[in-house]
Amino acid sequence: MLIELSEDGGRPIFINLASSILREIERGRLKPGDALPGTRVLAKSLKLHRNTVDAAYQELTMQGWLVAEPSRGTFVAHDLPEFKRASDTVPVRPQQPAAEINTTTRSSLHLSDGTPDARIMPHADLARAFRRALGAPAFLASAGYGDPRGNLALRRALASYLTDERGLVTSSNDVLVTRGSQMALFLAAGAVVEPGQMIAVEEPGYPLAWASFRAAGARVIGVPVDAQGLDVDHLAGLARREPSLKAVYLTPHHQYPTTVTLGAGRRLKLLELARRHGLAIIEDDYDQEYRFEGRPVLPIAARAEADLSTVYVGSLSKLLAPGIRIGYAVAKPAILRRMASQREAIDRQGDLPLEQALADLIDDGTLRRHARKARRIYQARRDRLAEELTREFGQAVSFTLPAGGLALWLRLDPAVSAEAWAERAAAAGLMVMPGVHFTLDAARAPEAFRIGYASLDEASLRRAVDQLARTRMPATTQARSR
Amino acid sequence: MLIELSEDGGRPIFINLASSILREIERGRLKPGDALPGTRVLAKSLKLHRNTVDAAYQELTMQGWLVAEPSRGTFVAHDLPEFKRASDTVPVRPQQPAAEINTTTRSSLHLSDGTPDARIMPHADLARAFRRALGAPAFLASAGYGDPRGNLALRRALASYLTDERGLVTSSNDVLVTRGSQMALFLAAGAVVEPGQMIAVEEPGYPLAWASFRAAGARVIGVPVDAQGLDVDHLAGLARREPSLKAVYLTPHHQYPTTVTLGAGRRLKLLELARRHGLAIIEDDYDQEYRFEGRPVLPIAARAEADLSTVYVGSLSKLLAPGIRIGYAVAKPAILRRMASQREAIDRQGDLPLEQALADLIDDGTLRRHARKARRIYQARRDRLAEELTREFGQAVSFTLPAGGLALWLRLDPAVSAEAWAERAAAAGLMVMPGVHFTLDAARAPEAFRIGYASLDEASLRRAVDQLARTRMPATTQARSR
Repeated sequence: MLIELSEDGGRPIFINLASSILREIERGRLKPGDALPGTRVLAKSLKLHRNTVDAAYQELTMQGWLVAEPSRGTFVAHDLPEFKRASDTVPVRPQQPAAEINTTTRSSLHLSDGTPDARIMPHADLARAFRRALGAPAFLASAGYGDPRGNLALRRALASYLTDERGLVTSSNDVLVTRGSQMALFLAAGAVVEPGQMIAVEEPGYPLAWASFRAAGARVIGVPVDAQGLDVDHLAGLARREPSLKAVYLTPHHQYPTTVTLGAGRRLKLLELARRHGLAIIEDDYDQEYRFEGRPVLPIAARAEADLSTVYVGSLSKLLAPGIRIGYAVAKPAILRRMASQREAIDRQGDLPLEQALADLIDDGTLRRHARKARRIYQARRDRLAEELTREFGQAVSFTLPAGGLALWLRLDPAVSAEAWAERAAAAGLMVMPGVHFTLDAARAPEAFRIGYASLDEASLRRAVDQLARTRMPATTQARSR
Repeated sequence: MLIELSEDGGRPIFINLASSILREIERGRLKPGDALPGTRVLAKSLKLHRNTVDAAYQELTMQGWLVAEPSRGTFVAHDLPEFKRASDTVPVRPQQPAAEINTTTRSSLHLSDGTPDARIMPHADLARAFRRALGAPAFLASAGYGDPRGNLALRRALASYLTDERGLVTSSNDVLVTRGSQMALFLAAGAVVEPGQMIAVEEPGYPLAWASFRAAGARVIGVPVDAQGLDVDHLAGLARREPSLKAVYLTPHHQYPTTVTLGAGRRLKLLELARRHGLAIIEDDYDQEYRFEGRPVLPIAARAEADLSTVYVGSLSKLLAPGIRIGYAVAKPAILRRMASQREAIDRQGDLPLEQALADLIDDGTLRRHARKARRIYQARRDRLAEELTREFGQAVSFTLPAGGLALWLRLDPAVSAEAWAERAAAAGLMVMPGVHFTLDAARAPEAFRIGYASLDEASLRRAVDQLARTRMPATTQARSR
């Protein structure tokens, strides 16, 4: 069989399959006019649901790579125009809105897992700051390499931002600038656990964090999450039983993916537990800026005493755009030094002009102004999504309006398969991430969707909810009529 | 003792020490007016040469952090102006010309290990392309994340650039865009060796490559280098004896640090050896653009048959500026997939607008034009450096005019300690990297300097050679008078 499935675990299977097919076309092994295998045949040979193969074919058909001819089958398009090849037409992350890049798929929509809207970021300010940084004497004279901890101006700007906004009393020496929070997580794991030791993580939780920990040699073990966030008692049991458990990773502000905020009692218990068992706390505070109701809850790291090992991880990507890759970690010197030394080995240093440009945007207040503006817009989108969901589904689904953040956690009737619904929605052009994406074990997958609302305007959100309704599975109806 | 030495292995000890002292000042543990320990006392307590402590104190004195009061000692300066703190005044890489950033040290000079001159890069073009990329529909709509292999436009641009310029017949599917070549080396090691297996490297060679391999879990073993480059017969012996040897890393175009080009016969032998023992070849072609005499020698990867595992690594940082971090790797799909998957775990993806901007600069010819201009300028600087060295030192040193690249390898009389000379030069304000920086074992350190000439204009090169002459050790005189 010519078509193989690439093994990337983090994205929907139909996207992987579509990528594999596209690769064959790009390499010329599938030529214009060639017939693709029937969906039934391909599904069988790849051990997939036929729906999945259908979804991949439809995605590529919408993008113009394939042509479906009723009752004859699916073929590689004859007129593959060069301009289509010149842009990345197959989304490689589930959240990527190929829809809006490629005019042939204008009707399809992607519900991200919670990404900001790149359209509202301060483009002109960033472009200007970047130009200024490229022309600055410090850059022109930088014949050598920079500090693996990042540009000092940016570390200072972040330190004062974090002190003012988040109660983290910190200095530039406690800050490591990374590419995005992904790298900060990888480095954190390498600094606080030895290969083979264990990091406890929220489940459901954030799979890319798990991937980063595993890449650092750690083992990952799940701890359940409920309406108060991480189940700290469960973690306590684990810590007693597992001497190799050395760290816990969590997203206390708005738990990923369920959006709940870790309760105050649990925070105190967690600190106590960490102290008793010598656990390091890796706190991923990826969307601290986005709190709509009340004040943001201060980070755990802001309350941890000096005897605890905390690595506080944040990101400017959630504030600006996912393609602007600046994250950071705050930790005490012994940990930060290990992280910086590993960072130098894997990546030497960051992009100087980009780091300098972002330092300028923090220092001159642009970033704070943008955060205020984004907060207003995203709150309105959250409210609109909630209205639409209530209007469309009533009691058939449930959710708690998130107090902040960029996504909503939509719980389905337990009799409904979120995964099957998502596949059906995808085939109809709507990408949405079901609970199975967020668990270590598919058997524990909650029947739920994580729906990012920040990156879509209100009209698109309405269209998305409509699509979701149209692709509702028969089981939903059953469940409702019980 | 308040002052501790930070452990960073890659840079001169006096720089580490200066950084440690600065950290104490920044933290407020050393206050304006405080006396520093005497150099003899501190040297003893830290087990350093007194010269090293002297050099650190002098560096900080030149930068205005410390004040030396004759016969009283050294003190933290009283008037530490805030503006000095606002820029990174202590160079954290030996090559960083703090001299030109900080006006108080205008008299000091840094000879890099071979970095380009950021002043001549096409700033305006890059700034424009970046602004364009930030406003492009593809970026505005990028609510999600991108391909961990890098922006498709950049992968296509690099593939066609490498095909045209370097005879690597390659497509976008064979290219992985990384942050800089550092990340490409780390990912390459992870893809071609298992933890605990061995990678053979040139010695003298490139220590940051070794650091990246070790970070990936590999062991590193040195292979000598002579006037023809890597000693392939020595490697053959190793390969026969060491079953865990799985890869060889080399810089065949201009060997780092000695600048010699690997001979044609050795290239063929190496390919044969790699085939026989199943060795992967990691080829670091960091300065392919810079060949002054004759045509560039084509990469080994361009001649390797499909049955060999090669990872070809390159960088745009050497073409533009060290602070612009774009590198890439070319490998066959099985290897590239492993690298991309690891990249996603440690760093998710690159900066979209920067990648798009560089794609544009390749596509519209800006990068090629810049390479031609830079080649002319750097060749003139190489020639000027060679003249100055000959004029100043005559037979006391020797070098082979490098056929290309950004640095010259200056061999000293074996009776002269390059390290001691470098420390003395540093104390007088001239940074230069002695052979000990490039060996796995200090006992094998060649008495030589690697002198980057590209980042300094001709007047500065002359000044640097003058400084070098003024700090010549007595041993040099001895050696010459023998």
